[in-house]
Amino acid sequence: MRRIVVVGGVAGGMSAATRLRRLDEEASITVLERSGHVSFANCGLPYHLGGVIEKRSSLLLQTPESLAARFAIDVRVHHEVRAIDREHRRVSVRDLATDESFELGYDALVLSPGARPVVPNLPGMSVAHTLRDIEDLDHLVAAARDVEAAVVIGGGFIGVEVAENLVHRGIPVTLVEATDQVMAPLDPEMVEPVHDALRAAGVQLVLGASVERIEPAHVTATTLDDGTVATAVGVPVVHLSDGRALPAGLVVAAIGVRPERALAEEAGLAIGERGGILVDEQLRTSDPAIFAVGDAVEKHDGLDASSVLVPLANTANRQGRVVADVIVGRPGADRPVLGTAIVGVFGVAAAAVGWNEKRLRAAGRPHRVLHTHPGSHAGYYPGAETIALKLLVDPDTDAILGAQAVGRDGIDKRIDVIATAMTGGLTAGELADLELAYAPQFGSAKDPVNMLGWVDRAVADGDVETVQWHELGAALAAGATLVDVRSPAEHAARPIPGGVNVPVDDLRARMDELPDGPLVVHCEVGLRGYVAARLLAQHGREVRNLDGGYRTWRAGTAATHVAEEVSAPA
Amino acid sequence: MRRIVVVGGVAGGMSAATRLRRLDEEASITVLERSGHVSFANCGLPYHLGGVIEKRSSLLLQTPESLAARFAIDVRVHHEVRAIDREHRRVSVRDLATDESFELGYDALVLSPGARPVVPNLPGMSVAHTLRDIEDLDHLVAAARDVEAAVVIGGGFIGVEVAENLVHRGIPVTLVEATDQVMAPLDPEMVEPVHDALRAAGVQLVLGASVERIEPAHVTATTLDDGTVATAVGVPVVHLSDGRALPAGLVVAAIGVRPERALAEEAGLAIGERGGILVDEQLRTSDPAIFAVGDAVEKHDGLDASSVLVPLANTANRQGRVVADVIVGRPGADRPVLGTAIVGVFGVAAAAVGWNEKRLRAAGRPHRVLHTHPGSHAGYYPGAETIALKLLVDPDTDAILGAQAVGRDGIDKRIDVIATAMTGGLTAGELADLELAYAPQFGSAKDPVNMLGWVDRAVADGDVETVQWHELGAALAAGATLVDVRSPAEHAARPIPGGVNVPVDDLRARMDELPDGPLVVHCEVGLRGYVAARLLAQHGREVRNLDGGYRTWRAGTAATHVAEEVSAPA
Ligand SMILES: Cc1cc2nc3c(=O)[nH]c(=O)nc-3n(C[C@H](O)[C@H](O)[C@H](O)COP(=O)(O)OP(=O)(O)OC[C@H]3O[C@@H](n4cnc5c(N)ncnc54)[C@H](O)[C@@H]3O)c2cc1C
Ligand SMILES: Cc1cc2nc3c(=O)[nH]c(=O)nc-3n(C[C@H](O)[C@H](O)[C@H](O)COP(=O)(O)OP(=O)(O)OC[C@H]3O[C@@H](n4cnc5c(N)ncnc54)[C@H](O)[C@@H]3O)c2cc1C
Ligand SMILES: CC(C)(COP(=O)(O)OP(=O)(O)OC[C@H]1O[C@@H](n2cnc3c(N)ncnc32)[C@H](O)[C@@H]1OP(=O)(O)O)[C@@H](O)C(=O)NCCC(=O)NCCS
Ligand SMILES: CC(C)(COP(=O)(O)OP(=O)(O)OC[C@H]1O[C@@H](n2cnc3c(N)ncnc32)[C@H](O)[C@@H]1OP(=O)(O)O)[C@@H](O)C(=O)NCCC(=O)NCCS
Repeated sequence: MRRIVVVGGVAGGMSAATRLRRLDEEASITVLERSGHVSFANCGLPYHLGGVIEKRSSLLLQTPESLAARFAIDVRVHHEVRAIDREHRRVSVRDLATDESFELGYDALVLSPGARPVVPNLPGMSVAHTLRDIEDLDHLVAAARDVEAAVVIGGGFIGVEVAENLVHRGIPVTLVEATDQVMAPLDPEMVEPVHDALRAAGVQLVLGASVERIEPAHVTATTLDDGTVATAVGVPVVHLSDGRALPAGLVVAAIGVRPERALAEEAGLAIGERGGILVDEQLRTSDPAIFAVGDAVEKHDGLDASSVLVPLANTANRQGRVVADVIVGRPGADRPVLGTAIVGVFGVAAAAVGWNEKRLRAAGRPHRVLHTHPGSHAGYYPGAETIALKLLVDPDTDAILGAQAVGRDGIDKRIDVIATAMTGGLTAGELADLELAYAPQFGSAKDPVNMLGWVDRAVADGDVETVQWHELGAALAAGATLVDVRSPAEHAARPIPGGVNVPVDDLRARMDELPDGPLVVHCEVGLRGYVAARLLAQHGREVRNLDGGYRTWRAGTAATHVAEEVSAPA
Repeated sequence: MRRIVVVGGVAGGMSAATRLRRLDEEASITVLERSGHVSFANCGLPYHLGGVIEKRSSLLLQTPESLAARFAIDVRVHHEVRAIDREHRRVSVRDLATDESFELGYDALVLSPGARPVVPNLPGMSVAHTLRDIEDLDHLVAAARDVEAAVVIGGGFIGVEVAENLVHRGIPVTLVEATDQVMAPLDPEMVEPVHDALRAAGVQLVLGASVERIEPAHVTATTLDDGTVATAVGVPVVHLSDGRALPAGLVVAAIGVRPERALAEEAGLAIGERGGILVDEQLRTSDPAIFAVGDAVEKHDGLDASSVLVPLANTANRQGRVVADVIVGRPGADRPVLGTAIVGVFGVAAAAVGWNEKRLRAAGRPHRVLHTHPGSHAGYYPGAETIALKLLVDPDTDAILGAQAVGRDGIDKRIDVIATAMTGGLTAGELADLELAYAPQFGSAKDPVNMLGWVDRAVADGDVETVQWHELGAALAAGATLVDVRSPAEHAARPIPGGVNVPVDDLRARMDELPDGPLVVHCEVGLRGYVAARLLAQHGREVRNLDGGYRTWRAGTAATHVAEEVSAPA
């Protein structure tokens, strides 16, 4: 009889345990979990805070009892594994309820300890809440009662979700993010709708400032007339690097997570360059009897096989299943990760897959960039919402390197389709040939994903040359003339400075009005600009099209202004 | 200067014309369109009838004027091409407004005449409306005023959409379908939610009956006391094969479409076995100067390369673009089709890609079948809707042969992901490894598509054997015992006749209650049945799991009853 011990009883750990039972009815399977709950919906925690998920019990997908009944798994909550004795293949366990310790032998040990929230070592930070498990949630819910203002530190997906849900509770929220944008997976010109949604919902967004210290709540004591002393407890004040002081009855730190690796490290298991537990393709650590999965391990990047940390539930669950197969001796191998992710906030969804432009640039990897702004479904059918889409493509191979989508509808679908295309090895141009389900309420005869394929081919085939939003200034400085091919009304309402206006439909007739020399054409989103560029090129003009049109330019420029303000001395 | 003439100015034809202009600023491009409009949204027509698309003008995406302005295309509506003089490369055109005819020479001719509604040759059928273009819509909208009851003949996607939109107008509708189900792309056990949605919205659904004749409206004349004659016009009566007589002020025939091939046929161009214009990979007809695209041509099936008719907008638009490339001498090739399609009706969406089981069976092609009933997103987050999913897999290669999805949310996404996986050559098992965007309002950590992959692997790896809903009777007749592993309450509420009830969580303790011999286990959707099957198999029992559980069995059985009633003599 195999003895299997699993450390951590949530996404990766419990997926491994249940799969192990399905594969081996005889094995002894013990799951040790430090917190008071297993198999809870981590990803749902923020939504119970905001009352979106009404019942706390909805978050508890399984209990030790249900897992014992169905899978004959010995699940022990409030049990922390303190050390691994690799030589004797046993773990030392602390029962946190009784404070007693004991040893437990294993033939195979699975570590799925997850990742812990980073809490910066700053004065007063101990008042800050973090959100990782049910206990954290309970504390947060209790602390959120009668709070007049909250500060959320960190604009990653958990910070953004917590901010949204505090607003749902009616608490005014300031979100403080040290960089110049929330949601780091998005490039700066893509993030604007998320910033807008946060602001429109009343979140005070502070970008480019960091927390320097938290001043504890002052207790003021007043001696009353009758000689008794009345004490009043104030609220902590969050002091920012830009000098702001924000009184906040509630502070939540959500500046990221780090692999929970102490146990592995102390046992002498190899740790990778990113600080995660190092595992091979079979999820084996440097000790062949010990496996590790989930947020705690380093993964291999789907594009360049480099080590990456991808703390996402899909990966943790899949690895849990793979490790079970490996342990019973079946073929099973971990896959490189694309890191597909999505967040929803106040009705806006933002999703990404693969690499973003920031990362491609930092790595010096050549890339072609495309921006489009299609409707989520056919424009003639009511309710279509604009999607901001970005595709990053390898200019040599046409391989898809990454994609981003932001908007109110159809975001998850487009990113899922592109993630699937990447996994299937389709090129960017091949997106044009996908047969996607079309009726007017669901998409377009040429779906936004198809359209990305055509826009890509137009560039790849040399039919059009594009200028990116951040290259426009240089192009104009080098002498190009900017031609706005939108209607006069659009030109007047939303101009790019320095542009002359000749609508695309008048171009053939008014071509002689255009000054000599290189041209950059632009429209609202890039389509009419492309049509104009094709026309002008065939009439012998040197012309480039502003990729993504006015909209991408405006979003990018707005983001740059933020960045400049942020980096300017306070 | 190239002279290009395009016949048919909508999806395929106009896509070809605009792309041609982008590729060749010099060409003379003439588009001839029989109806009074070009570039209209065929797929939106039913929704204007119902007022969902309020403005008729929303359906007119481009006009002859806008196309002349932007693309310098000579667009002539009310111009019908009557004949092709292949020898002299010219078409003879009738101006339907003036009734004058003229000839027009071409270097390349593009036929995109579409498909015309089939109208059965039955007595009285001439009163029936069809819906193909704006003129048809105008007639239909006019005829729908003051109508007390309507009959829609045909349960394909246009029939279903027309029925829905007549209900939106407040008109009681009877939908008559000759087979035992609407939406032929779906297998019988998948279609039930569509039938339910139609009935719940008040549509009288008549399955398995066909129209035999339509009795014209009677005019009754009454001589009044003063000697004058008053006439009253009744309504036509639709007589069905089952003896029913349905009075209907409005009759719409939507029993399918046939390639509009007369022009090509009369010109001696090759016609394929399915009745569509025959084209090669470059969309060239048997005359190298004549090309054809869209609903009028035969396509090659993505699975077996056989000739198929796929009258869908995505294909027509893509072919229009390819043919333009070919005409200017660029590389360009048509692709085999998967036929991804979707329809929405009263909030239920039904989508399919690839082959269905009916077709696989008819072709004698081996296939593995999987049914699941996952939530559209994480169950702990409010608003999740059940999806009925079906996957068809090649048992030898694990290739995905087809998929179907029906439900109220996330249908388009799942079918699009599977269609993309098929195009990328991913196997069914590889669906498990897809990294799909997950936050609780958008999906699940193990997305329904991932789950299909695991369910497939469990069968492929021999971990479980399944019984299909239609095989259960035979399995039980051959001596297997049916074990319902749901809770006693579920068993009592929704039993499959003949099953004994031992909840999965009690199985280990109560195993000796199970009779000897082969077992079939079942639960509500298949998951607990799978867990039970794994357990029992490891305890040495011969066991199979009812694929898709009670739900698929019930839906399939209900469909079979319909089919039996339908085929029984009236
Ligand atoms: C608030 C929040 C929202 C999230 N939202 C999303 C989302 O929308 N989408 C998404 O993809 N991902 C989301 N995630 C991330 C996702 O939950 C994780 O990727 C996933 O849970 C990781 O699984 P895991 O098994 O590695 O770790 P976990 O699920 O975190 O489980 C690890 C468990 O191990 C226990 N443990 C650690 N050390 C020990 C020890 N020594 N002894 C005993 N027990 C120990 C811990 O108590 C913990 O419960 C979210 C996470 C949080 C916290
Ligand atoms: C009501 C309705 C709903 C639909 N819904 C959907 C949907 O939801 N999803 C989907 O994918 N598809 C849908 N379709 C199908 C889709 O519209 C077609 O696949 C697509 O339009 C085919 O393009 P085509 O260019 O081949 O033909 P069409 O778009 O039909 O254009 C052909 C044109 O050629 C003209 N013509 C024919 N012969 C001549 C001639 N001799 N001279 C001059 N002109 C001629 C006709 O008048 C016609 O306007 C729907 C169709 C209809 C009618
Ligand atoms: C729920 C949890 C215990 C895992 O349980 P699990 O048994 O592995 O997963 P599921 O209940 O989804 O069942 C999956 C199994 O059922 C099978 N299955 C699913 N649907 C099926 C169906 N309709 N018919 C037959 N089999 C089915 C799958 O093939 C899979 O089996 P396999 O792995 O042996 O191939 C674990 O994931 C967990 O603790 N989750 C909560 C925490 C978490 O995931 N957090 C992050 C997200 S919030
Ligand atoms: C609308 C219609 C005239 C086609 O016009 P079109 O110019 O081919 O199509 P679009 O306006 O979508 O533009 C597509 C072109 O713009 C380019 N493009 C799209 N978005 C772009 C962007 N943001 N930036 C740059 N280029 C862009 C594409 O690459 C493509 O060009 P290419 O084919 O040369 O590569 C034709 O499809 C039609 O008549 N449709 C109505 C009928 C119909 O489709 N019915 C069935 C469905 S209801």
